[in-house]
Amino acid sequence: MTRLFNDPSSFATEAVAGMASAYPQYLTAVHGGAVRATASPQGQVALVVGGGSGHYPAFAGWVGPGMAHGAVCGNVFASPSASQAYSVVKAADNGGGVVLAYGNYAGDVLHFGQAAERLRAEGIDVRTIEVSDDVASAPADQLRKRRGVCGDVVVFKIAGAAAEAGKSIDEVEALAWKANDRTRSLGVAFDGCTLPGAGEPLFHVPAGQMSVGLGVHGEPGIYEVPMGSAAGVADLLVDGVLAEAPAIGTDGYTGRAIVLLNGLGTIKVEELYVTWNRVAERLSQVGITPVLPEVGELMTSLDMAGVSLTLTFLDDELETLWTAPVDTIAFRRGAVTHREHRDVASAEEPHAEPIVPGSEASRALAAKVVTALQLMQQVTVDKEEELGHLDAIAGDGDHGQGMRFGATGAFSAAKDAAQADAGAGTTLVRAGAQWAESAGGTSGALWGSMLTAIGGVLGDQEPATATTVADAVAAAVSAVQRLGGAKPGDKTIVDSLVPFTQTLSSAVEGGTRFADAWRQASDAAQAAADQTADFVSRLGRSRVLGNKSLGVPDPGAVSFSLLMKALGDAGTFDAL
Amino acid sequence: MTRLFNDPSSFATEAVAGMASAYPQYLTAVHGGAVRATASPQGQVALVVGGGSGHYPAFAGWVGPGMAHGAVCGNVFASPSASQAYSVVKAADNGGGVVLAYGNYAGDVLHFGQAAERLRAEGIDVRTIEVSDDVASAPADQLRKRRGVCGDVVVFKIAGAAAEAGKSIDEVEALAWKANDRTRSLGVAFDGCTLPGAGEPLFHVPAGQMSVGLGVHGEPGIYEVPMGSAAGVADLLVDGVLAEAPAIGTDGYTGRAIVLLNGLGTIKVEELYVTWNRVAERLSQVGITPVLPEVGELMTSLDMAGVSLTLTFLDDELETLWTAPVDTIAFRRGAVTHREHRDVASAEEPHAEPIVPGSEASRALAAKVVTALQLMQQVTVDKEEELGHLDAIAGDGDHGQGMRFGATGAFSAAKDAAQADAGAGTTLVRAGAQWAESAGGTSGALWGSMLTAIGGVLGDQEPATATTVADAVAAAVSAVQRLGGAKPGDKTIVDSLVPFTQTLSSAVEGGTRFADAWRQASDAAQAAADQTADFVSRLGRSRVLGNKSLGVPDPGAVSFSLLMKALGDAGTFDAL
Repeated sequence: MTRLFNDPSSFATEAVAGMASAYPQYLTAVHGGAVRATASPQGQVALVVGGGSGHYPAFAGWVGPGMAHGAVCGNVFASPSASQAYSVVKAADNGGGVVLAYGNYAGDVLHFGQAAERLRAEGIDVRTIEVSDDVASAPADQLRKRRGVCGDVVVFKIAGAAAEAGKSIDEVEALAWKANDRTRSLGVAFDGCTLPGAGEPLFHVPAGQMSVGLGVHGEPGIYEVPMGSAAGVADLLVDGVLAEAPAIGTDGYTGRAIVLLNGLGTIKVEELYVTWNRVAERLSQVGITPVLPEVGELMTSLDMAGVSLTLTFLDDELETLWTAPVDTIAFRRGAVTHREHRDVASAEEPHAEPIVPGSEASRALAAKVVTALQLMQQVTVDKEEELGHLDAIAGDGDHGQGMRFGATGAFSAAKDAAQADAGAGTTLVRAGAQWAESAGGTSGALWGSMLTAIGGVLGDQEPATATTVADAVAAAVSAVQRLGGAKPGDKTIVDSLVPFTQTLSSAVEGGTRFADAWRQASDAAQAAADQTADFVSRLGRSRVLGNKSLGVPDPGAVSFSLLMKALGDAGTFDAL
Repeated sequence: MTRLFNDPSSFATEAVAGMASAYPQYLTAVHGGAVRATASPQGQVALVVGGGSGHYPAFAGWVGPGMAHGAVCGNVFASPSASQAYSVVKAADNGGGVVLAYGNYAGDVLHFGQAAERLRAEGIDVRTIEVSDDVASAPADQLRKRRGVCGDVVVFKIAGAAAEAGKSIDEVEALAWKANDRTRSLGVAFDGCTLPGAGEPLFHVPAGQMSVGLGVHGEPGIYEVPMGSAAGVADLLVDGVLAEAPAIGTDGYTGRAIVLLNGLGTIKVEELYVTWNRVAERLSQVGITPVLPEVGELMTSLDMAGVSLTLTFLDDELETLWTAPVDTIAFRRGAVTHREHRDVASAEEPHAEPIVPGSEASRALAAKVVTALQLMQQVTVDKEEELGHLDAIAGDGDHGQGMRFGATGAFSAAKDAAQADAGAGTTLVRAGAQWAESAGGTSGALWGSMLTAIGGVLGDQEPATATTVADAVAAAVSAVQRLGGAKPGDKTIVDSLVPFTQTLSSAVEGGTRFADAWRQASDAAQAAADQTADFVSRLGRSRVLGNKSLGVPDPGAVSFSLLMKALGDAGTFDAL
């Protein structure tokens, strides 16, 4: 379990601050993460990596000459927000374009993608690389749909070395993809990890069993087998990875390979060395020569008990980049030319525009928005554990925490805005921006866009009517569908959003009193959410995750319906 | 718990082999441990470090230019044997003398000391450094009686850098002691660690508590306090270490310090960074500047949940050595001049002399020795867990395992010798050498010397008589007292050895039948052993370890009396 923390909600931020404090020769903390403390040549392609925290040395442990220029650090197991990614890129850019690299997870793809759009609009050439090395997460013919796990180390090292060698952004991007497409990983878990402040692990593996195909966010594996000896575990991992090994000679494959044997958290390094002997023996039997292999904690999942094996099938070009010098907190090799310290230009949080006061009617509505958000925050606190457990079955276990972080941030931002005389629209837009910022993750982005859309419809002048509120909700649902691309039935939040908005709008159109319409809509949302929850518990985690034709279901539908019901029950809309 | 292993008894050997296999550019495995894979300048002082396994990166992770030339690697939590230390030194020596550095533990002091004597007899200038940085283990006025914990990192780095700088053996020795005497550590444990193959941890800390003053062999702390936040834990550690901080200006102390924040096993690095913030703040408040601090897993204790803080109060000379380049598997800093690979001269196990056949009478006696050792081996298997638990209360938990390893090795060596027609004396001497080799640790050395002394008295020609066996036992007890320096009442094996030999000798002198005399002696030994066991369980572990005026009691008295009683009960001496 995670034992040393202060406020669990600031764990990730404090960890990055501590890294920069302990290793100021390597790292400078900025809003959203950290960048190199040393200067890079003007015009050098900047590699910015990132993802959720809880994966040390990923991601800030890899910032330095020969590897990344910056790391975006989200909350524990939650993707960083788009504004965090934007901030780190702005501090890391050397004028040569930016490669944004991260694991292939929905939340990361969403937020890094949004940041890339914004940066491109400002004239920065940004390329995105979604690392996808986990053989357990999708079939071989859907390589780039796989999750990213320890392959991050390889892809980031190759891309960083290419940038260091002065290659163009086109070349760096192409080399990163080449490294990704030749990399395969497989892991097994012996027990789950515990989020800071949580009472118990995200999952348990029965004693004497191991769970094959674990993810790095506390996702359990896709099937369980009896626990083996160190050699037995090595065999299982080698078999899994070698199943997709190319023939020597194919596409320049030399028979030489990067080999990473990675401890996920509480498997100690001596255990990894004991396991390594068998890995090396097996590779030798099929004529594979490891090139500067790494054995240790390379990509962790808090205190998960697990181990993973990664192979990259090298050609000469990739081998040169893999063996090049690197000098970061957690990965050092060879001699790196001396670098001067630099003062990072901008480390402050982004400033908000001054607030233009709303009308009296809209200010009164803003006060109701604040009250509603306060109630929602309370519900997320009460339901955090329940939502976390539901998410741990189906996904990565961060949903409860993410909802609480988001609602807490949104409530606080709304209060500040309302106190500064903002109307309802501005209050909601501020709250939405802060929700995304505080929560990160997929749900953070979606809730942020919902509040923003509602604020846009309500504006800062007009009082609310039943019709404008129903229209605002419809706009919010449209925003989510546009952003996330999910359809009803995909087992996402959209499953409950659609019946909610349809029921609400038609009841309001039909003349139903708004408070009653809201309750009818909540019931419809909850019925849909119950189907999601039921679906998850019926299939059980192994079969959910093993069924590759489905998206990974998330409890967004459940948390949405809970919150809507609570608003109705509290009489929020009785006066409408 | 330790999850990945094959045969638990070969865990340590397999781990070293795996390290050398994964990092052949750094490490070459030799009998007893590992040495640098790269050449060192002729005449350079060689630094050989070592101790038990289970402490990664200690000790082989620190072998390379700028740090150690070799590492002696014992079994898990057990000191290596003298012959292991001898072997590694022979492979690491550059002709400039050898500094042998290790933590201040009875078993290590014994075995490294024996190896040093043998090497000196061969004309190698060997100096020994017992690292003693743990403030919880002895009062400040008995600095060099303290245990060695994470201070190893500092002392080894300073000594290695001094050797690398071409300093003489006198200078390297003096600098190592200076570093040791200016270093202070304190740790806390949140839960115990589990030996490979063991069913449960060596100790538990009650939920919500933390145990202050942990050791690195699974020794629990000396008192328990409620679990704190990360900042609270930092305060406790800083307070403990700063209690012995010198005034700035004293002995060249510049106000600059090495600071190590060390995770013992399952405390993850991000937790350490969160904790670091408060450590840095507190040090800043009292004007201490950290110099290239290290935060991470520096000296572990298998999967123990714990954290320790180490400070070394620097002068300019030590700071220069601390910041010098180093290039090892686990500790890399700056650029080290390129080193050539070398072929290590000797990696084979020491060869035994050919056996000279004994007389027919002595060969018959040798057969009885083999039977007796087989019985003893069986008893150590049966009692391993019981002895381990008793040792975990009072010491480091390795006694049961060590006795089993030792007796198993001794039985096997005796069988081989007897099959080659050895007499009883040679059979016992071979068994004794192998007991020490297989077991390591204090008890390994003591049992090895007992069997050797008994063999010396019995010889390879004469049949055994009641008097010669009683005299042989007396010689064995003398050997232990000479080697270990303990007196009756120190709560060591001597407590039961002395009444055993006294009872046996006087009963035999008084004409008692030998088998009966043996049983009387066993009863006397057991009465003494019961007092040790009772003493330990009465005081409880905290008060035993907290009482600095006592030696740490060990269950050697208990295992000795168990074995003697078993021999008597089996009728081993009925024919005498």
